[in-house]
Amino acid sequence: MRTIFWDDGVVMVDQTLLPERFEILVCKTVHQLAEAIKRLAVRGAPALEAAGAYGIALAAYERDFNDLVEIKKHIQDAARLLASTRPTAVNLFVGIERALKAAMSGDSIEEVRKLALQEAERIAEEDVERNKKLGEYGAELIEDGSTIMTYCNAGRLATVDWGTALGVVRSAVSQGKRVKVIACETRPLNQGSRLTCWELIQDGIDVTLITDSMAGIVMQKSMVDCVIVGADRIVRDAVFNKIGTYTVAVLAKHHGIPFYVAAPRATFDWNRSMKEVTIEERSRDELIYCGNRLLAPENVRVYNPAFDPTPLDLVSAIITEYGIIREPYSENVPKILEL
Amino acid sequence: MRTIFWDDGVVMVDQTLLPERFEILVCKTVHQLAEAIKRLAVRGAPALEAAGAYGIALAAYERDFNDLVEIKKHIQDAARLLASTRPTAVNLFVGIERALKAAMSGDSIEEVRKLALQEAERIAEEDVERNKKLGEYGAELIEDGSTIMTYCNAGRLATVDWGTALGVVRSAVSQGKRVKVIACETRPLNQGSRLTCWELIQDGIDVTLITDSMAGIVMQKSMVDCVIVGADRIVRDAVFNKIGTYTVAVLAKHHGIPFYVAAPRATFDWNRSMKEVTIEERSRDELIYCGNRLLAPENVRVYNPAFDPTPLDLVSAIITEYGIIREPYSENVPKILEL
Repeated sequence: MRTIFWDDGVVMVDQTLLPERFEILVCKTVHQLAEAIKRLAVRGAPALEAAGAYGIALAAYERDFNDLVEIKKHIQDAARLLASTRPTAVNLFVGIERALKAAMSGDSIEEVRKLALQEAERIAEEDVERNKKLGEYGAELIEDGSTIMTYCNAGRLATVDWGTALGVVRSAVSQGKRVKVIACETRPLNQGSRLTCWELIQDGIDVTLITDSMAGIVMQKSMVDCVIVGADRIVRDAVFNKIGTYTVAVLAKHHGIPFYVAAPRATFDWNRSMKEVTIEERSRDELIYCGNRLLAPENVRVYNPAFDPTPLDLVSAIITEYGIIREPYSENVPKILEL
Repeated sequence: MRTIFWDDGVVMVDQTLLPERFEILVCKTVHQLAEAIKRLAVRGAPALEAAGAYGIALAAYERDFNDLVEIKKHIQDAARLLASTRPTAVNLFVGIERALKAAMSGDSIEEVRKLALQEAERIAEEDVERNKKLGEYGAELIEDGSTIMTYCNAGRLATVDWGTALGVVRSAVSQGKRVKVIACETRPLNQGSRLTCWELIQDGIDVTLITDSMAGIVMQKSMVDCVIVGADRIVRDAVFNKIGTYTVAVLAKHHGIPFYVAAPRATFDWNRSMKEVTIEERSRDELIYCGNRLLAPENVRVYNPAFDPTPLDLVSAIITEYGIIREPYSENVPKILEL
């Protein structure tokens, strides 16, 4: 089953409930979808690309309109609302923009609706295809018998299907390679323990869970052959990904372990640099509470950025659906991705 | 109030309940104390030194004995039980050994009891004194206006009083220096968020909580002037401390930030090397459950070492009650500590 799809509304696996419950969430309005994105019921840069595009389709279908001007205005408002939900993953904006542009070219209410949904479906389809291509390229980097460390969830649940970092793992496994995964739990929201472990176990892929703080010792003990992570945005001097990615990259550098980033072309925002990207700061409650447990004094000051930038000099290669990109990135990224 | 003391039994703050509840636990038998140590109601190497010694006193007082042979045998059995509770912190064994030796020199049941308790009280007293000395030395390294990162809890709660790493912070504050602390939450048991934040807030010291995975970004953003951690055991080539310490040490090295270890002489086990130390592995449940929350699939494989070794070449200085020790450690540690 796909992580996100259209069925008379935007349908998704509610990722906030895994691994406790597998529940399907149906968003019938753009407001419902915006809420779902904000509370991370759907997350992961490529999945957000599809979510943004489906959101535009939802705007077109969620109510009746009197004329073309009204539906187009409504869709433009929806685009702004959806774009305001999360600031870091560039794919969200790509998905919104593509579907918006398609919708705007329509000459009737029905055509606007059709074009928006068609483009959203195309984006979802393309995501699955590009991840499989990316996975095939990436699998060339994986030797039989390797142990791969990953961080956060750049898997099926972060995409429409197959995954980016975990897409590489899946492609290597499909090629018959024996591969083990070490998953960092990824505090504070535990996407690693909740989502990566869950989806790898579903697929019968060997996975061992560690805390983020154990990334050092497993590298010191030579238990890791390479690291593969996803990305929320790649600018010309850094990779923005889930908070903690930078820490793992520094550790990999220190231990001489290859550090790979797996991400589709749409994740690149090559005209921007590290300093120009807003890093989302999330609620302090994420560090203070865990279910019915109080993990810290309720009045403590908290710093809770959702992402961090990893300078490109810590990245051994970027795996894309156009091929594997190595240094010098300033030259090879525009060349290979035709940017 | 002291973290652990004698009052007709071994009395302690139950650290598993903080910050939700402040409760006092009274152990009336060696078995109760051994359980308390195992489930981390009392933890921290220097506090375990006192706990081990008080445990010997408890063995002497917990029941009636017919003769000297019987009480001495009972105390020796208790020493073995207490020593088996946790394998890594060398101070536990130091405390047990010292009180045991004192008790064994007694010539009557009453004298054995008195000598055991006297030695335990002396150890507790010495811990407070040595931490204050260590704190004074360490404070010399702290400039006014500094931000200090710490990991786990090497504070009042990890000692009888004052603390080691946080003892340095307290001494700097007493000298009138303005100091801020960044506390890493320290997964999986959150001693950083639960205990370090709690005790610093109690003392009115400025503290900001981050996840362990954010240690990288705060260093990248130049928010940290130095790191100070405690130690469970210092061997001739490494410092054993709470799992995750090594990761922070590598990060500090990468960013050119001083990485200090604060620990009393009793933490040194200078005749051993890294390879000879057993690292305690704890229950997989610590990563899978958090209160009523399921953080990972229940059938996932988990790796959960409780400590990691940080090679001494990542340590900028070791702060002890005998003074600050710098490289070459092989020469300076035995010289300064008179080992």
